[in-house]
Amino acid sequence: MMTGDEYRQSLIDGRATYFDGERVDDLAGHPVLGKTLAYAAGNYDKRRGSNDPTPLTATPKDEDELQRIMSGLHDYGLLFLATYTSLQTIRTAAARIEGLDPAYRSRIENYVDYVRDNDLRVTQCITDAKGDRTKAPKDQTDKDAYLHVVERREDGVVIRGAKLHISLASFGHELLVMPTKSMKPGEEEYSIACAVPVNAPGVKIINISFSPRVDDDRSYPHSSKVHETVEGFVIFDDVFVPNERIFLNGEFKHAAVFAHSLGLWERLANLSHMAEEAEQLVGLAQLAAEANGIDRVGHVREKIAELITYSCIMKATASAAISESTWSDEGDVFPSELYTNVGKYYGAANYHSMIRHLHDIGGGSILTAPSPADFDNPEVGPFADKYMAGKDGFSGEKRAKVFHAIRDLTADTLGGWRMVTNIQAGGGLFAQRIVMRSHFDMEHAKGLAMNLIDGEG
Amino acid sequence: MMTGDEYRQSLIDGRATYFDGERVDDLAGHPVLGKTLAYAAGNYDKRRGSNDPTPLTATPKDEDELQRIMSGLHDYGLLFLATYTSLQTIRTAAARIEGLDPAYRSRIENYVDYVRDNDLRVTQCITDAKGDRTKAPKDQTDKDAYLHVVERREDGVVIRGAKLHISLASFGHELLVMPTKSMKPGEEEYSIACAVPVNAPGVKIINISFSPRVDDDRSYPHSSKVHETVEGFVIFDDVFVPNERIFLNGEFKHAAVFAHSLGLWERLANLSHMAEEAEQLVGLAQLAAEANGIDRVGHVREKIAELITYSCIMKATASAAISESTWSDEGDVFPSELYTNVGKYYGAANYHSMIRHLHDIGGGSILTAPSPADFDNPEVGPFADKYMAGKDGFSGEKRAKVFHAIRDLTADTLGGWRMVTNIQAGGGLFAQRIVMRSHFDMEHAKGLAMNLIDGEG
Amino acid sequence: MMTGDEYRQSLIDGRATYFDGERVDDLAGHPVLGKTLAYAAGNYDKRRGSNDPTPLTATPKDEDELQRIMSGLHDYGLLFLATYTSLQTIRTAAARIEGLDPAYRSRIENYVDYVRDNDLRVTQCITDAKGDRTKAPKDQTDKDAYLHVVERREDGVVIRGAKLHISLASFGHELLVMPTKSMKPGEEEYSIACAVPVNAPGVKIINISFSPRVDDDRSYPHSSKVHETVEGFVIFDDVFVPNERIFLNGEFKHAAVFAHSLGLWERLANLSHMAEEAEQLVGLAQLAAEANGIDRVGHVREKIAELITYSCIMKATASAAISESTWSDEGDVFPSELYTNVGKYYGAANYHSMIRHLHDIGGGSILTAPSPADFDNPEVGPFADKYMAGKDGFSGEKRAKVFHAIRDLTADTLGGWRMVTNIQAGGGLFAQRIVMRSHFDMEHAKGLAMNLIDGEG
Amino acid sequence: MMTGDEYRQSLIDGRATYFDGERVDDLAGHPVLGKTLAYAAGNYDKRRGSNDPTPLTATPKDEDELQRIMSGLHDYGLLFLATYTSLQTIRTAAARIEGLDPAYRSRIENYVDYVRDNDLRVTQCITDAKGDRTKAPKDQTDKDAYLHVVERREDGVVIRGAKLHISLASFGHELLVMPTKSMKPGEEEYSIACAVPVNAPGVKIINISFSPRVDDDRSYPHSSKVHETVEGFVIFDDVFVPNERIFLNGEFKHAAVFAHSLGLWERLANLSHMAEEAEQLVGLAQLAAEANGIDRVGHVREKIAELITYSCIMKATASAAISESTWSDEGDVFPSELYTNVGKYYGAANYHSMIRHLHDIGGGSILTAPSPADFDNPEVGPFADKYMAGKDGFSGEKRAKVFHAIRDLTADTLGGWRMVTNIQAGGGLFAQRIVMRSHFDMEHAKGLAMNLIDGEG
Repeated sequence: MMTGDEYRQSLIDGRATYFDGERVDDLAGHPVLGKTLAYAAGNYDKRRGSNDPTPLTATPKDEDELQRIMSGLHDYGLLFLATYTSLQTIRTAAARIEGLDPAYRSRIENYVDYVRDNDLRVTQCITDAKGDRTKAPKDQTDKDAYLHVVERREDGVVIRGAKLHISLASFGHELLVMPTKSMKPGEEEYSIACAVPVNAPGVKIINISFSPRVDDDRSYPHSSKVHETVEGFVIFDDVFVPNERIFLNGEFKHAAVFAHSLGLWERLANLSHMAEEAEQLVGLAQLAAEANGIDRVGHVREKIAELITYSCIMKATASAAISESTWSDEGDVFPSELYTNVGKYYGAANYHSMIRHLHDIGGGSILTAPSPADFDNPEVGPFADKYMAGKDGFSGEKRAKVFHAIRDLTADTLGGWRMVTNIQAGGGLFAQRIVMRSHFDMEHAKGLAMNLIDGEG
Repeated sequence: MMTGDEYRQSLIDGRATYFDGERVDDLAGHPVLGKTLAYAAGNYDKRRGSNDPTPLTATPKDEDELQRIMSGLHDYGLLFLATYTSLQTIRTAAARIEGLDPAYRSRIENYVDYVRDNDLRVTQCITDAKGDRTKAPKDQTDKDAYLHVVERREDGVVIRGAKLHISLASFGHELLVMPTKSMKPGEEEYSIACAVPVNAPGVKIINISFSPRVDDDRSYPHSSKVHETVEGFVIFDDVFVPNERIFLNGEFKHAAVFAHSLGLWERLANLSHMAEEAEQLVGLAQLAAEANGIDRVGHVREKIAELITYSCIMKATASAAISESTWSDEGDVFPSELYTNVGKYYGAANYHSMIRHLHDIGGGSILTAPSPADFDNPEVGPFADKYMAGKDGFSGEKRAKVFHAIRDLTADTLGGWRMVTNIQAGGGLFAQRIVMRSHFDMEHAKGLAMNLIDGEG
Repeated sequence: MMTGDEYRQSLIDGRATYFDGERVDDLAGHPVLGKTLAYAAGNYDKRRGSNDPTPLTATPKDEDELQRIMSGLHDYGLLFLATYTSLQTIRTAAARIEGLDPAYRSRIENYVDYVRDNDLRVTQCITDAKGDRTKAPKDQTDKDAYLHVVERREDGVVIRGAKLHISLASFGHELLVMPTKSMKPGEEEYSIACAVPVNAPGVKIINISFSPRVDDDRSYPHSSKVHETVEGFVIFDDVFVPNERIFLNGEFKHAAVFAHSLGLWERLANLSHMAEEAEQLVGLAQLAAEANGIDRVGHVREKIAELITYSCIMKATASAAISESTWSDEGDVFPSELYTNVGKYYGAANYHSMIRHLHDIGGGSILTAPSPADFDNPEVGPFADKYMAGKDGFSGEKRAKVFHAIRDLTADTLGGWRMVTNIQAGGGLFAQRIVMRSHFDMEHAKGLAMNLIDGEG
Repeated sequence: MMTGDEYRQSLIDGRATYFDGERVDDLAGHPVLGKTLAYAAGNYDKRRGSNDPTPLTATPKDEDELQRIMSGLHDYGLLFLATYTSLQTIRTAAARIEGLDPAYRSRIENYVDYVRDNDLRVTQCITDAKGDRTKAPKDQTDKDAYLHVVERREDGVVIRGAKLHISLASFGHELLVMPTKSMKPGEEEYSIACAVPVNAPGVKIINISFSPRVDDDRSYPHSSKVHETVEGFVIFDDVFVPNERIFLNGEFKHAAVFAHSLGLWERLANLSHMAEEAEQLVGLAQLAAEANGIDRVGHVREKIAELITYSCIMKATASAAISESTWSDEGDVFPSELYTNVGKYYGAANYHSMIRHLHDIGGGSILTAPSPADFDNPEVGPFADKYMAGKDGFSGEKRAKVFHAIRDLTADTLGGWRMVTNIQAGGGLFAQRIVMRSHFDMEHAKGLAMNLIDGEG
């Protein structure tokens, strides 16, 4: 395993990455991106220092192992998680595609080994620019609206297009490129899956982040520690990909399998992450209620019960996603599509409403609690402490910290990012409903209904 | 095990039972109650004829056994289910009460054996009349508002009061009487748990049922087969209970344990039943959509996805209620209070909205589909068939049957009964929120929140 | 104006009407339909006895008049309301269709005069059988799936088809037939609007009603008084319509205008009716809470506040539907399509959830309160009264009546009818969203958004 | 009327105002507060330049005037609106308090004249620190937890305490101090209403704002123009108030009237503002759908219909709040408490869910659209424009602007501020339910229910 420093060094590889209109050659020294780099490097060291670190590439063989991996997956940050789900995505795709060319299969296994052996980080590039969404890839005015092969050579292909919403793209080593959807005859050039190093010639990444840019970040308890809201807009400006990194090339029938496999693993990871977040939201709501001295008030208790319900339903569906797993012929365990999507959908669809409960319980001080610097000021600090004080045990300063945390997490830049990503990660609400409909055993349900209609049930 | 006939005979025991203002001495011959009796008798025969019938009294020793029992519990009707949960209730109470008088403990075990050995049916009597709900039992103007002991004799006690909402009370052999809530010092006389035969002198039962009273019940596919909506209003007019049937007598501190134990088992049974119902609702919605030829329409598919989510969440929480079980010192398995209540609450709180989806998909024909007799009539039947016909495969008559089923189940007498009982069985929505709050690991959640506030998570 | 008796006489006109598979020649003497007839006759007398009865045919000239008419419209039952909205529908259509043949226009006015002068009752027949809903009328396998002209004669046309969900069709004098949707070239024969007497040769009506059939209807406080749940399945088996009763005949471009005009008036009437019902639901919830002695309990008060919100939003949207009216060139006032549909949609979409609140507050006694006959019985009546008694002022019998009313209205046959008709009357939820989208001033809203985007708002 | 420059000058008055721990003597030159000052000054100029500016102090005499004032109230920013509602609050209180000392009444009128004549700006200070919320003001450990009179002199009183959540407190001239709730005997010292200049000795204001601190604010189309998210934490450290500025002093019975009057006007202003915002949200959703080329997709149209419903319900309730106004004896018009609170509650309770729809429609580009500077960069700008392009008419740059606006308004700092303030302004959700319950005509609703129960309705 790499150290954090080795990781830092490894990114000085000539990559073309941009922020706010300027090329960034020194990621480590950049005021915004540098924090993200430092956070990612810290996670390398953290995993290295761990006694029993979650493996980067293990394919679980039973439900317990799957559960264990999912529990550990969030310990080393989003970049680690993205790498794990990326590799599981192509492995799952390989397992699901009947009659996949064995060459692809062995390239995939070689690639997984390569990533593991070099302790690399991979982000998955799926969403295309899409241009006019009412048209298929091949019917677009701009043929590049979906990433495609523009030249086939003996030793590889040249690709062109863009991939959007790639979290932390500039901080990994590899980009795993996959078709965003099912493809049709005539869309062979769009049916491409492959791996590309971030520093490959022709790759350009525009980074977008609205993370707070303040000197004194003490009122950002989460944002000042975790720096993962950097999104990548990845441009492939005629990038060459050698044959050994190509996992699909023209077989349009198999294109959708990659997207579905990605959806499965990404949504399961989201679900388990949202379930953890939800538990934390319950805790925040309870702390805010106690800080405000209203934890015994009826309507507050009702709202906390709603948050508990939300948290428990996500835990229960995440658990069912694992206990209802299916096995591949090779003995690999894949989580349940049905429960993964039900849980993810429920969590995403109700997240905003849960935030509403928290905002209702927290009150105006979420926005108006004096800052740490105000508490430090001798002229107004004592007043801040005096007048922010709550019931026994809650000094003004401690109470203010509860509100700062709620604001940072749910009512400021990070809060907005979470609201949008909770809905959009792994596809919007509609995408999940499609999957749950296609995996629900409708014939069984109709049979139950027919029993009733026929007076037998 | 008794046969259905033996069961029928066993109820001719002098019980005082009433319907619509008249005493019913011949249950079997009664136009409404007779159907319920026949249904219950049929379930005796059905269980007897089963290869591997669900046991009447087994206390599960591991999660798989609990799962197996819960799955089978609905196979023999509500009366069988009520018996099982009744006996589990007093056993769970016995296991939970520290320092319970061993005499009570052995009476409970004896009673369970007695019920099992004689293949009896038991309903649990918990809800008191309650009078003025703003006052405690001992402060009521009418001291009988809560059932209580009015006389203590050497060989037993005499009780007085009423127990409400006792489903099928007139069709069981035994009434299991329990305190409805926690009791306080001075409420010793209200702290009584005991078993009373239905035909004990002083017991009077008013039956209430609004089940359809039509000659031609063909448009009631469920109501014409299952007859379980008879509710009992049970009066205890100075009923003597011998010592060996008394399970609690004055120990007010333990009174609440019975109610909580009952809540646990009843809600788990409800949850697993509602989960099955939900799957059936999905099937009905899909059939209705197909019958109407709108199963490919966007908004219809969305609503069906909502029903699938509802169904799966209940299955997932029911499953978590079992997988998160706890063990008693004796090795008995008790389902998780937290997940049982979360699932039951979610299911009850959202049931009406799911019915709305079904009504929206089904359309006006839920109410206006011609009756089977109309289809039989030579003057209008052919028109009914012609104009009720849907897309290929749906003749007018078949399509009408789908609507009859939906109306019977969700938009007629039975539908109303289900809406109310889904909410009220095991206590209303508020009761479940109390339990989930008290069993949620709030300290853990607060710890997660504190990590965030302190910048560690 | 006719008396009730004259009305009764007027229906003895040879009409072919059926119930439960049998032709009914004596409506007045029929056990189910007779009650509906008596109710409708009573409304004739009631209106006749009124000092200032709501006019049968006035087209409002300003918003106050529209408000006054809407307020009075529910006073004389559904049949009266259906007549008013029927006539307004064709008048509105006439006003909206540019270039409508003047012959049609004068026939419509003559027909309105005819109905008014003879004090007739009209029901509007719109919903066709529809067959395979994925196909247009002209593409159906069964050409009669949509009502159409099968023969054109010099003096009129012959029509064939069926119209569904026609409330009280057998109790009016006239059927107002309209196309159910927009029509296309080639669908001229389906573009027919006309008036047909109920007793016209070839008209057959199957009546469907599930209203309670009990001798003692005292526990049905509403169903025993109001008898309007009889739905008609109306068959047009080659019915001749003379020219002067034809209002559209082949002009497919105008077909949709009738459906839209009907939707407008029917939804406004629904909205104002639902707003009244909602206020009654608030009152019932409050009475149930008081009867149960829980009216000061926090979660109960919250639920009542939700019901109040529901009630007030419907009143506010109904009021906006009128205050935002538009005028025809002739000075007739038409209610706002936007607010009518918003209010109707909101009311229908949330009705089931409001019923849930009522069921939660009411508790199990909604189903289990003893019947009036039980109270009369000397053996159990005194116990029923004693144990059903609530807080001061609520005797057992009075409290039971509250529950009977809630059950009758929301958890029994009538309750199911209301749930379905609240959603379906005037078209399902989807239909209302279409209208609200098409009448919302989207350009204005986009302008507001553009101001923001451009930094100007 | 003052010019913007005169306003700027007028604030250089020795006020003690703080930001991020430092005293700010030069408001105009402060990097954060200076923008807010400039915005407020601009609104002075804007109103001055208006032909028919909304009056600062008019009490509407009829519903049309009230409607006109409410429509214009948002044109000159929050500070102007706060001034208007402040003055209406004390006037309404004066009109509502029976037997108010005429001295108070004339002081209030004099004060209103003073503010108008000098074109001042007033913020209302209501929310106290509250300390332990389970205790009344007089029972607090820290007696200053609620602002109170600590000394009474012949010429006035000295007050101590703090007022929280005072939007723009540092940018007005006057602070209108009012009791936060009803007071009881023994709480005379807390029953104080008065006006205090911002620069009065002893007044200290901590300002809190998280508005974005970036140099290039082009991706903040709203935040870069409107600067109103500065909240004040106002400390009264023994501030002297002369008699002529005291409007209540010890009359505890009248204390609550001020809070209720404030609630009425503030909630009506909120409601009308939220109704406008809602319309803008519809427009943004539609633009985002068009930019994404998904405006014809079923589920997107459904979500836009939900937003339309939301917007129209708020407009309808705002309109009802005015059309159902009441009159004071003096002929002043006061908006309806019932509809104001119903509308405000509905809007606040559903705002987060509406934002969810917008986030679902907008997609990941809400967060990941390249910044204006990226578009300017010659190396990546052309790619940004090429790959962000949507359907015809949406260039990449234009489409990115739509997403920037959505992020700024709903998924960034301002978005969090709006979510919290929409819920909290004028009191949280619970407060509105209390008011709506107390103003709903429950006796009428119970009468309707009783008619039903008695079989008369």
